Amino acid sequence: MTATVADALVAFAHRLADAAGAAIRPYFRTPVAVDAKPDSTPVTAADRAAEETIRRLVEKEHPAHGIIGEEFGRIRDDAPFVWSIDPIDGTKAFISGIPTFGTLIALIRDGTPVLGIIDQPISGERWVGIAGRPTTLNGREIRTRECRLLAEASLFATAPSMFAGSDEAAWARLAGAVRMVRYGADCYAYGLLAAGFIDLVVEADLKVWDWAPMAPIIEGAGGLVTGWDGRPMRLDGDGRVIAAGDRRVHRAAVERLAQG
Amino acid sequence: MTATVADALVAFAHRLADAAGAAIRPYFRTPVAVDAKPDSTPVTAADRAAEETIRRLVEKEHPAHGIIGEEFGRIRDDAPFVWSIDPIDGTKAFISGIPTFGTLIALIRDGTPVLGIIDQPISGERWVGIAGRPTTLNGREIRTRECRLLAEASLFATAPSMFAGSDEAAWARLAGAVRMVRYGADCYAYGLLAAGFIDLVVEADLKVWDWAPMAPIIEGAGGLVTGWDGRPMRLDGDGRVIAAGDRRVHRAAVERLAQG
Repeated sequence: MTATVADALVAFAHRLADAAGAAIRPYFRTPVAVDAKPDSTPVTAADRAAEETIRRLVEKEHPAHGIIGEEFGRIRDDAPFVWSIDPIDGTKAFISGIPTFGTLIALIRDGTPVLGIIDQPISGERWVGIAGRPTTLNGREIRTRECRLLAEASLFATAPSMFAGSDEAAWARLAGAVRMVRYGADCYAYGLLAAGFIDLVVEADLKVWDWAPMAPIIEGAGGLVTGWDGRPMRLDGDGRVIAAGDRRVHRAAVERLAQG
Repeated sequence: MTATVADALVAFAHRLADAAGAAIRPYFRTPVAVDAKPDSTPVTAADRAAEETIRRLVEKEHPAHGIIGEEFGRIRDDAPFVWSIDPIDGTKAFISGIPTFGTLIALIRDGTPVLGIIDQPISGERWVGIAGRPTTLNGREIRTRECRLLAEASLFATAPSMFAGSDEAAWARLAGAVRMVRYGADCYAYGLLAAGFIDLVVEADLKVWDWAPMAPIIEGAGGLVTGWDGRPMRLDGDGRVIAAGDRRVHRAAVERLAQG
């Protein structure tokens, strides 16, 4: 991929995020109807409108690219370039009026995420990660912070209920070893990890559209995103994720999770 | 208290919130040192600067009023008018770069909170509740929403770890009965309850400065704030709080918590 092609795709990704934000904002803090999906997670007209807007733009401008979206499924997902879309990550925050939700967009090339965006359309914050380039928050380069030990680390996850079966005990071991545990920040926690204000995000049961944008965003800021086993994320993996700003605390988290 | 006196006190409370925000903003998303207090909760120079600023203004303009502050304690707390201050409610959010923390200010008259402010100095959101008047968010009147049943309700708390002993089982009973549970929004959840986007906030172990501002804010928006027993909050109470937007779901929550 030449720099010119990459730049054109980055510009296109910004347009996707702009369009999704424009679709979402009119619904924020309005009494929008909340439907339950088959997995009992909530979805609203804002989720659907944002994903439809993005899909329409991809179909129009890059009809050979594939799409994997949370609300409307997969098309051409064996193409060399595939866009993953979570129109509103953090729908529970969104319907509660809390601006820590985000639109997640990733471009996956031959199975590897090479571009990621977290866009918060109310605060106007946009994180952009591109393979081989420094990650930016609203155009300004950001870096993860140093953190050597679990005892120094802050740890985030969306909710304790995401850890089922043996994951629950593993999470409890890790949570008991860190300086501070906090729930409820969704994708915003990954963005703040990339910006150097959080040390670890550990989650389970993530889908491709949840984690794909995080890999280039966090790696481009100096951190790393792996499975709980410490190995690279895979599109067909188990959806368990460790994001860390420092390799030393990452290694400690992998060991602690595996200790049971 | 005449309307003129009340208006002057409200204007003064706005000045306190303005000054606290100005003290806090320079520290947001900077690598501020985090100290552990004796109860192991975090505190920063921003917490201290904001409370000192507020205390200085009260001492200068209302030297007969009492002060109860989270960081610097009590003075003249038997005065007819007492200000309660939590300079940064949600210090964990603050140090993580998440703008859901808030400055909490209440004016307590003869033991009853008659004025409450939640100020979010990054997003620029300010909730103001005054006994006998409609609650406002940035000057616009807000109302709680209807919610009859626990099965329809969204429920917030800062963290599961705040429920110790028998409270843990009571919380689990309540959490199992509602539509949606969410952690991590601190004072922001009370503001969004007053604005009609959240149905219940149930917490334990709150101090006066945590709950005092919520009473006028939520009552002035049509809701109510009580202990877990459904009775009015008391300054010397046990710090367990139910905030609800609708009396019907409030009653259901009281019953569910007591059911064990």
